[in-house]
Amino acid sequence: MASRLVRGVARTMTTVAAVKTPRLTRAGRYISTSLLVSGGVALYASHQGSVAAAQKAPTTIDTSKFMAPPITELSVLEGKPNDMRTKMELMIMRIQSEFCRALEGEEGAGCKFTVDRWRRHNPSEGGGVTCVLQDGKTFEKAGVNITVMTAPLSKELQASMRARGKKLPEDKKFSFFAAGISSVIHPRNPHVPTIHFNYRYFEMQDEDGNNKHWWFGGGTDLTPYYLDEGDVKLFHGVLKSACDRHQPDYYSRFKKWCDDYFFVKFRGERRGVGGIFFDDLEDTDPEKMFGFVTDCADAVIPSYLPLVKKHKNDAVSEEERRWQLLRRGRYVEFNLVYDRGTKFGFATPNARIESILMSLPLHARWEYMHQPAPGTPEYKITEVLKNPKDWV
Amino acid sequence: MASRLVRGVARTMTTVAAVKTPRLTRAGRYISTSLLVSGGVALYASHQGSVAAAQKAPTTIDTSKFMAPPITELSVLEGKPNDMRTKMELMIMRIQSEFCRALEGEEGAGCKFTVDRWRRHNPSEGGGVTCVLQDGKTFEKAGVNITVMTAPLSKELQASMRARGKKLPEDKKFSFFAAGISSVIHPRNPHVPTIHFNYRYFEMQDEDGNNKHWWFGGGTDLTPYYLDEGDVKLFHGVLKSACDRHQPDYYSRFKKWCDDYFFVKFRGERRGVGGIFFDDLEDTDPEKMFGFVTDCADAVIPSYLPLVKKHKNDAVSEEERRWQLLRRGRYVEFNLVYDRGTKFGFATPNARIESILMSLPLHARWEYMHQPAPGTPEYKITEVLKNPKDWV
Repeated sequence: MASRLVRGVARTMTTVAAVKTPRLTRAGRYISTSLLVSGGVALYASHQGSVAAAQKAPTTIDTSKFMAPPITELSVLEGKPNDMRTKMELMIMRIQSEFCRALEGEEGAGCKFTVDRWRRHNPSEGGGVTCVLQDGKTFEKAGVNITVMTAPLSKELQASMRARGKKLPEDKKFSFFAAGISSVIHPRNPHVPTIHFNYRYFEMQDEDGNNKHWWFGGGTDLTPYYLDEGDVKLFHGVLKSACDRHQPDYYSRFKKWCDDYFFVKFRGERRGVGGIFFDDLEDTDPEKMFGFVTDCADAVIPSYLPLVKKHKNDAVSEEERRWQLLRRGRYVEFNLVYDRGTKFGFATPNARIESILMSLPLHARWEYMHQPAPGTPEYKITEVLKNPKDWV
Repeated sequence: MASRLVRGVARTMTTVAAVKTPRLTRAGRYISTSLLVSGGVALYASHQGSVAAAQKAPTTIDTSKFMAPPITELSVLEGKPNDMRTKMELMIMRIQSEFCRALEGEEGAGCKFTVDRWRRHNPSEGGGVTCVLQDGKTFEKAGVNITVMTAPLSKELQASMRARGKKLPEDKKFSFFAAGISSVIHPRNPHVPTIHFNYRYFEMQDEDGNNKHWWFGGGTDLTPYYLDEGDVKLFHGVLKSACDRHQPDYYSRFKKWCDDYFFVKFRGERRGVGGIFFDDLEDTDPEKMFGFVTDCADAVIPSYLPLVKKHKNDAVSEEERRWQLLRRGRYVEFNLVYDRGTKFGFATPNARIESILMSLPLHARWEYMHQPAPGTPEYKITEVLKNPKDWV
């Protein structure tokens, strides 16, 4: 599979496998194809951060597997293969493609993602690639979006950055660069959970090129409608393995951060059964952070696809469908009221709102005073949403 | 009808008609029954602000037509019949009852509002009466809520009050009193518009009883799924008449305020075809303001019920239903992202969230990149949402 990714460059499976972690390699069909920046035989930066070999020929980038051409001009990317912006853009485009193709594999024949490659109103500010699959047999609405943009930081966003502890002098104008992937998958069957993930890299600097900041953020979290403990353990287990390869305390820190972040205060419950969440990670070597974020993004498919395969054909009652729609209403509440990414989008002038709100489900329902009866499966999941558990 | 409201007190229709405006009196079945605080033969404060007669006997209040007993102890209300808090509470309870009964009149037999009388977690802080009719033949979800509460003003709310220009010293703790009615009606037939109205009275003071503020706010606005210009003109015409009885510039000011307020910035469109909206009204004699707000509340039924009667049995295609659900998604967006009342509720500790979010529709839908084709009826309404018109 990986060899098909590389166009016109000799490469062997051995080369690819060498940069993969054992766990992901064992996953077989989910083998990562992070080998995208290349020149000559084996020229690329591995996702562990070290440059594997010196460049001996002009760098060429294979984009043939991407859902669309990258946002940044290919010549710019090829000219700066080791720039974090380049590496992040290529990583998120690869993840987008792999995830979309994996989801399509669970659909009926001919049900494919639509691909919108778009640019900001001012094209020099970048753009994105929004992939959506709607009204499928397995997925009611699945959105996978990448954004690569450079834009002035609005006053509103400057204030929110300061509130998060960034030191931004009041008398300076700032611009930011952001490259990120964001995805929400709403399956049709209520026994298949909804998944969300988002991995992003930010840079910020003032108009004179000073006061530079950079950081990574992201996370993956699961929102089941019915509690299958085996599913939740598998999901958290895969995330924990990805974290454990980098820092022994990452999983426990980021699991708690996730439980705290996806909290709907006015309901007194979490959006789902959590996962990992982190933001403003800037205290480590950027190459190491990139390696970590890449591993997290590579963990999405092995953490989620088994759940889709297991439940997508489960029998469904009308009551279960109704419950799913009610919970999707709660999902909408979190996304519109709390979600940092959505708010960032609302506060960004000329944001592409359809890409931001592709996270909303095709259908949602709100009933006044709906309360599941104690002892029912619907009640069981709400107990976990109120009192987060340790799963692994 | 009004005489049936008064229990154990001699009263004639002439007495009632004397306090009604000609327009509403002509409305026949919608005659207002604001005559609720009474003692002896004709003792009450008219809603134009003057006390009609001196009290000659203990004040008694007839609550038999209300959806539930008032929130404030009857003895307290009867002891302060001319207090604005009393007058507001009785007015909103009357409006709630009249509106609920009028809506029930458009439903199938036996389809009635459920009535929840609730108190705050700390019962001394007041509570409310939430009436909801769900999954009816005519109304998919109809909510009519009254709240009467006294509570400490959270720091978050103090900040938002300051942002609106209220002078609240930083070193003081504040409490507030609020009495209001709020309603959102989502009909089943896409040719019947959704209506929202909200009328409220606020008082605020610091812990020493100083730094007092009071104001009225409110509005009524219409959200059609399809544009019937006659409907919109009737609706705006009734609101204009109510405004014109008080100040010649009220309608034009409050119509513009409504267009500005119900604006979804990230969509570049209004929620609907507007109506009237105002807040922080504190520059006029409170009795006059109360009279105005009462007239606005009394205008709800004559502005809306004719539209329900006209369209509730209109033929509906699947495409029209789909469009209605998509527009309901937009309604959810406004309510969760922008609505001042919803945000106030989210920021109020221990708020009764089910009463706040009863405004959300039973069903909503979000499709990626849905755009009605130019020339279609769906397109026609979006043009009006982007470019508000003068209707009367």
